[in-house]
Amino acid sequence: MKLVAIGGSDAGISAALRARELDPGADVTVVVADAYPNFSICGIPYYVSGEVTHWRNLAHRTHADLEATGTTLRLDTLATDIDVDGKRLVVRNPDGSTDALAYDALVVGTGAVPAVPPIDGLASLGPADGVHLLHSMGDTFALTDALERIEPRTALIVGAGYVGLEMAEGLTARGIAVTQVERLGEVLPTVDEELGAIVRDELVERGVDVRTGATVTSIGTTGSGLRVDGRTDDGETVGWDVDLVLVVVGVRPDTDLLVRAGAETGPGGAVVVEESMATNLPYVWAAGDCVVTHHRQLGTTYLPLGTTAHKQGRVAGENALGGAARFAGSVGTQVVKVFDVVAARTGLREHEARTAGFAPVSTTVAVDDHKAYYPGATPITIRITGDAETGRLLGAQLVGRRGAEVAKRVDTYATALFHAMTVADLTALDLAYTPPLGSPWDAVQMATQAWVAEHQRDAERAALAATR
Amino acid sequence: MKLVAIGGSDAGISAALRARELDPGADVTVVVADAYPNFSICGIPYYVSGEVTHWRNLAHRTHADLEATGTTLRLDTLATDIDVDGKRLVVRNPDGSTDALAYDALVVGTGAVPAVPPIDGLASLGPADGVHLLHSMGDTFALTDALERIEPRTALIVGAGYVGLEMAEGLTARGIAVTQVERLGEVLPTVDEELGAIVRDELVERGVDVRTGATVTSIGTTGSGLRVDGRTDDGETVGWDVDLVLVVVGVRPDTDLLVRAGAETGPGGAVVVEESMATNLPYVWAAGDCVVTHHRQLGTTYLPLGTTAHKQGRVAGENALGGAARFAGSVGTQVVKVFDVVAARTGLREHEARTAGFAPVSTTVAVDDHKAYYPGATPITIRITGDAETGRLLGAQLVGRRGAEVAKRVDTYATALFHAMTVADLTALDLAYTPPLGSPWDAVQMATQAWVAEHQRDAERAALAATR
Repeated sequence: MKLVAIGGSDAGISAALRARELDPGADVTVVVADAYPNFSICGIPYYVSGEVTHWRNLAHRTHADLEATGTTLRLDTLATDIDVDGKRLVVRNPDGSTDALAYDALVVGTGAVPAVPPIDGLASLGPADGVHLLHSMGDTFALTDALERIEPRTALIVGAGYVGLEMAEGLTARGIAVTQVERLGEVLPTVDEELGAIVRDELVERGVDVRTGATVTSIGTTGSGLRVDGRTDDGETVGWDVDLVLVVVGVRPDTDLLVRAGAETGPGGAVVVEESMATNLPYVWAAGDCVVTHHRQLGTTYLPLGTTAHKQGRVAGENALGGAARFAGSVGTQVVKVFDVVAARTGLREHEARTAGFAPVSTTVAVDDHKAYYPGATPITIRITGDAETGRLLGAQLVGRRGAEVAKRVDTYATALFHAMTVADLTALDLAYTPPLGSPWDAVQMATQAWVAEHQRDAERAALAATR
Repeated sequence: MKLVAIGGSDAGISAALRARELDPGADVTVVVADAYPNFSICGIPYYVSGEVTHWRNLAHRTHADLEATGTTLRLDTLATDIDVDGKRLVVRNPDGSTDALAYDALVVGTGAVPAVPPIDGLASLGPADGVHLLHSMGDTFALTDALERIEPRTALIVGAGYVGLEMAEGLTARGIAVTQVERLGEVLPTVDEELGAIVRDELVERGVDVRTGATVTSIGTTGSGLRVDGRTDDGETVGWDVDLVLVVVGVRPDTDLLVRAGAETGPGGAVVVEESMATNLPYVWAAGDCVVTHHRQLGTTYLPLGTTAHKQGRVAGENALGGAARFAGSVGTQVVKVFDVVAARTGLREHEARTAGFAPVSTTVAVDDHKAYYPGATPITIRITGDAETGRLLGAQLVGRRGAEVAKRVDTYATALFHAMTVADLTALDLAYTPPLGSPWDAVQMATQAWVAEHQRDAERAALAATR
C-alpha cells in the first residue's frame, strides 16, 4: 500500500499521520513544496510580532518527529501533474529533475493562495518595495526581512479579518504605527457589526488607526516609501504615505493541480469532495483549504480553516487506506485574539441562516464571565441566533476580554450545534460553576435564556395556560 | 394560583422566579428562614478571604430586585409544618407568632445542613471557642467575627473538599497559617489521586500544611487556644495547637420538614422526587440540596450542587403552575479554583462507573492549553474515562493553571456526556482554535484521541484491515 500525500500543511500531514497510525506497514510519502513541513500558518503573526522567538518553533512537529512516525518527506518538491489513469504523481525535485511517484492512493492538500484584491499597482510591487502578502513561510521571511531592512515607522494593512487584525497587533507590538483599512463597514466582518465594534474599540485604544468602509484603489512607490490611495463608501478620496503595506484579504483554493487532472469544482471554486473526502477522480482524495467544506447547517460551502483541514486530512488518510470514515461537518467555529479582546463565533449569523432557509431571530446580551462579587469580572457580549419556528440554535457570537474563557465558551455552543439542540435546551446543560470562573447559569446559558425570554416567552406562557 | 416556596437559596428562589416569569398573575411567596434571600453560598469563602468587600455583594439579587419580580418574601420566617391535606404551610414569624399559609402548590427547597463528623468534643464547642462550621450566612458572620476577635495566627481545616480548599486559600490570604487535614488519601477526593496531587502541590507551594490520610479524633480548648488530636492511616497519633478550627466535610439534606409531612427519602437520605420534581405528597414539589439528584449516567443519586438546585427549582416552579417540565439530569459537572490551580470534573470516575455497570478504562495526558510557541502555554492534565465496550465517554477530569480555560473546557465534555457521545466522536467536534488560546485539535480532543490510541487502536486497525 503506497500512499502519497501532497502538501506539508494541516491536511497533507494529518492524512499521513492517520494513515501511519492505522497501518504501520503503509508506505507513506508527503510531497512538500517548500522546506517547512507541518508549520503552523496560524502562528505566523506571532512570529512577526516577535512573540515567537524562532521561526522553527512554529512547527507543530519537527522534521525528525515526522520521520519518526515512518512518514517519508520530500521537501522543496513541487507536484506538477497527476497521471490519474497511471496512478502516478509527477513531481519536480529540488534539483529541477522530475520523478513520477507511483501511488495506490493519493491525498491532495494543496491548500490555498492569498486572494489579491484589484488594487492598481499592486501586481507590480512586492517585498522589495515593502508590499507584502502573507500566507506561506516564504512570505513570512520576506516580511521579517523587510521589517529589519526598512525599519518601518508606519504600515498600512489592507483587510481587517483574522490575519489582518492579528497583524495589526503584531506590528503595533513592534512599535509600528498601523493604519488598518477595511472595505466593509466594521472590522472582523465574520461577526455582526455590534460585536465587531468592540474589537474596533480595542484596536483604537491600542493606537491602531482604523478606517472601515474604505477601499484601497492604488498603491505606488514614492521616493521615500509607499503611497496608498483609496475612497470611502461616501465617495471621498483618502490617502496615506506609509513605509510598508500588508495585503491580507483572505484566500482562494489552490486547485490548479487537481483541476488539470479533471477534478470538479464547486462553491468558492474549491474542489468537490464527498464527506469521505473522495474527489471525482479514482484513487484521489483531497482535503483542507483546496476543497469544499461540508457544513452541518449549510450543506456544501467553502470555509477554509485549519481545524477543518486537520479533520478532513485525517478522514482522507483513513479512507485512502480503504477505510470508511466520514467528515462529520463544520459548524464554522472560529476565534481570534486582538490585543486583550477575544472574539468567537460558531454556526450561522442571521443573513447566512436566512439564505439557508431558516427563520433566524437574535438576541444580544452582555453578561459577566463570572460572579460580579469576585474581583475581575468582565462582560462578555453574546449574540444568540435561533430559529423562530423550530427553536433550534443557529449560531452564537461572543466578544469578551482575554481571560474570560470566551474561546472555550464558544465550544459549548459548537457542541450544542453539532447535536442540533434548541436554544431553550441549553438551560439543561450541566455546565461548570465556581464564583471566580462562572455563574450558576453560565454566561452561555444566560444568553440563551435571554433569547428565549425575547422570542419564546409568550409561547411558553400560552403553552402553560393551555395545560391548566 | 397561590404558590408558596420554602427556602431563600437557589432552589426556592429559582422556583419563584420561573413561576413569575411564566405567569405574571401568580401569587408567589417565598418563606426564608434567615434574612439573606438569594445569597450565593458558594461565594462565602471569598467574603471570608476579604476578596468580596461587603457581604451584601454576595446576593445574586437584592431584596428589591426580588420584589420587583412580583415575588413576596417572608424573611426570618421558619416553615415548621406542612398540612398536606389542608394545603397549608405553618410558619413561625420573626415575632414568634405562627401563621398558616394556604397554597395551591408548595415548592420545598430547605437545602442541606453541614455534616458533622464524629470528633470528640466537637458537639460542645462553637464559634465562641473558635470552632466553626460554614454553610449559612449566620455561620459566615460567626466566622468573620471570630477572625476579628481572635486574630488567629493559625487555623486547622478539617476536610479538603471544595469548601475546605477554598477556605485554605481564603485564610492563607488573610495571613493565617493553615493546616489542612483530610481523612482520605489525597486532597480534593472528588477527583482521582493523580489529579488531586497537583492541587496538593499548589497548596503546599502556597504554604498550606497538608495532612492527608489523617483523621481528627478530638478537639478541645487549651488556655490559649485549641488542641486538635488525630491519627494517621498508619496508626500514628498527630496533634496540633491552633487558634481556630473550621470543620467543612460536606453536607446532608435538610429533610425534616418534608419527612414529617410524609415524604419518602432515598439515596443519601434525600427526599425522593420525580424528574418533574414532584414529591410523593400531593401539590408538593421539592428541589435543591434536600432532594435526590437524577443523574444521566447513574439514575437516582444524591449530588447537591448549586447549578443543579437552580435547574431543579426552575422545573419545580414551572410544574407547580401546571407545567410539564422535566429536570434533564445532572452529569456531575464541578469546578474549583485553589490559588492558581483549577480542577474540574464531569461524569464518572472509574470506580463510580464500575459500580454503575459500565466497563471503564482511562487515559491521562498532560497537554498544553494553547500552542507552545505562543508565550504562556501551561499544561492541563486531563484524565478521560470511557467504556471499553461501547466506546462511550463516561467522564473527564481536568487540572490546570488558572487562565488555561479549564472551567469551560470541562463544559465541552459535559455537553458531550449530555448527548452520550463516544470518546472517538469528540474528534468530530468543531472546537475553536487560535494559537494564543488553543490548538488545532483542542486539548479536549488531544485527550480523547489519547484514550482512543490506548484503548481502541488495535480495534481500529483490525476494522480497517477487514475492509481491505
